[in-house]
Amino acid sequence: MNLDEIVGQIQPLDQAAMDAARERQNQLTKPTGSLGRLEELSIQLAGIQRKPLPSIKDKSVIVMAGDHGVVAEGVSAYPQEVTPQMVLNFLNGGAAINVLARHAGARVVVVDVGVANDIPSANVNLIRRRVGSGTMNLAQGPAMRREQAEESIQSGIEVALAEISKGAGILGTGDMGIGNTTPSAAIACALLKVSAEKIAGRGTGVGDEGLKRKIAVIKKSLQVNRPDTNDGIDVLAKVGGFEIGGLAGVMIGAASRNTPVMVDGYISTAAALIAVSLAPECRQYLISAHCSQEKGHELMLQWLGLKPLLELDMRLGEGTGAVLGISMAEAACKVLSEMATFGEAGVRNKE
Amino acid sequence: MNLDEIVGQIQPLDQAAMDAARERQNQLTKPTGSLGRLEELSIQLAGIQRKPLPSIKDKSVIVMAGDHGVVAEGVSAYPQEVTPQMVLNFLNGGAAINVLARHAGARVVVVDVGVANDIPSANVNLIRRRVGSGTMNLAQGPAMRREQAEESIQSGIEVALAEISKGAGILGTGDMGIGNTTPSAAIACALLKVSAEKIAGRGTGVGDEGLKRKIAVIKKSLQVNRPDTNDGIDVLAKVGGFEIGGLAGVMIGAASRNTPVMVDGYISTAAALIAVSLAPECRQYLISAHCSQEKGHELMLQWLGLKPLLELDMRLGEGTGAVLGISMAEAACKVLSEMATFGEAGVRNKE
Repeated sequence: MNLDEIVGQIQPLDQAAMDAARERQNQLTKPTGSLGRLEELSIQLAGIQRKPLPSIKDKSVIVMAGDHGVVAEGVSAYPQEVTPQMVLNFLNGGAAINVLARHAGARVVVVDVGVANDIPSANVNLIRRRVGSGTMNLAQGPAMRREQAEESIQSGIEVALAEISKGAGILGTGDMGIGNTTPSAAIACALLKVSAEKIAGRGTGVGDEGLKRKIAVIKKSLQVNRPDTNDGIDVLAKVGGFEIGGLAGVMIGAASRNTPVMVDGYISTAAALIAVSLAPECRQYLISAHCSQEKGHELMLQWLGLKPLLELDMRLGEGTGAVLGISMAEAACKVLSEMATFGEAGVRNKE
Repeated sequence: MNLDEIVGQIQPLDQAAMDAARERQNQLTKPTGSLGRLEELSIQLAGIQRKPLPSIKDKSVIVMAGDHGVVAEGVSAYPQEVTPQMVLNFLNGGAAINVLARHAGARVVVVDVGVANDIPSANVNLIRRRVGSGTMNLAQGPAMRREQAEESIQSGIEVALAEISKGAGILGTGDMGIGNTTPSAAIACALLKVSAEKIAGRGTGVGDEGLKRKIAVIKKSLQVNRPDTNDGIDVLAKVGGFEIGGLAGVMIGAASRNTPVMVDGYISTAAALIAVSLAPECRQYLISAHCSQEKGHELMLQWLGLKPLLELDMRLGEGTGAVLGISMAEAACKVLSEMATFGEAGVRNKE
């Protein structure tokens, strides 16, 4: 199925289900609105799942891994070999995302969408959807060809649909890719039309010199490539990354199947910018899990009109914020379904 | 055991355990500090539990219920009969705290520390530690006698020690009591030495007139009673509540047994003000779960030097924020214990 068809399948949220959920929230044994964000979230989830009592059982976080030619410019504190090493760590269950996904009861789906070197693993849980062996250096030309950008999105759509057909009721997004805050920042600068200084942060921890270099690289990538900001595929191809395209595909695929997406941090939010520029209706299916410590994330969330659930000063990626957010979404559904109403409990309502 | 003895048993946190936890965090396969508050929290928990790898298994939220004579002044949007009705709702499992505690895997311990009317229940899970049948009207004189204030704290200490001896590794605090934002605000005004306008909010939802009345009542309570701000027991007796004293006791009891306390919202934080004024060392054992929407909560947290984990615009009480915070504390411990180190995973560290 091609991208236009999938995008065309995305429906507006079900207002009747949302009204029913809102009405029920007002009958539950608590002052109206007193559960704040959990109430809003339950209403959004009702609209997404198109039923008055949404529920989240099977949970999945999709971690897309890819490499970035731009690391040649010295924009990251870690060497590129860390990308496949961390993918192996994910497969072995030792990374932060594994620990937090177990805590939230979510499974971790690892996708190699374009790591530079082959990942030496026979682990059947590794999904290989390689669009290339890392992107090219976006400071010197396009990060990828247009067809690769399309293929990365397609991969994400297909992984999302497969997870949903296995039963996933919510998808979290996660990323791994040394250097990937640079393309994420470049995407944001292009689409938000703001300067690199406002968007770029220290990533995994570059110093002052590294940050200056990174800002210069982002500016250069936009000058060299001149991405067409009315064309999300062009932006992705010129200054993006394979895992970013993959995650945009996950969001579009999930939205087409009435499935909520818990958006992780900086990289996932850059993917959301691409997804929403390609499919504006998809935005209503997105939930922002947290505001990361990475500079510019807040501006990206504002542009999307998303308000983060958590602010835990995290800046790791991998989907670590997303799985904590998924646990909140599950709690929101349980509140709506399991709490007694004033009538059921024999509690007097407000005078 | 009397209060002075228990307070004397509270130790400073174990710095060696905290150093070991901090050192391990730096060896785990992630950039240092990238898990933000979860890292800080794991280190605090190591210091509290006095071991490098803290763990939270058995979890308990203690919900203290009491009534308030001040409701005669029209300070609440709900009638007083709602207090026992909600206690029955807790016992029947239909309230928000039940749903969210099940989600977090915590048990709910309900304590009647002074509801105005007898609670018609044979439920053996209701702990009856009644200090009185509701407090007196603090706008006209002391809310309770000094011995009642001491007894409420003692009740909390005993309930906490009993839960800990049953195996609880963390205690959450929760409250139920129509009218209890008024005494909580009065306590905060007295101890923080700020005006009622800065502290008082709409509670469960009073309108503009109700809020004006509430502010006037708080001011009057302080003029009529003149609580001695160097004496936490006097403040509690003059302008407090039984459940507030009970929760202060829970905090002091837990701290004396190296057990962390997840502090819920406005009422629990007022209890923390009393606990810390009686036992300053107890502060290090407290974790603020969330900043509630109730006005003045932030000032109270600042005075305590606590930074909330979550900001979900909640304002319900019952311990609903605390159980969500407990889940975060559990996640923090798991990260520290279960993640692989750079050495174990064969991942290269920062260059």
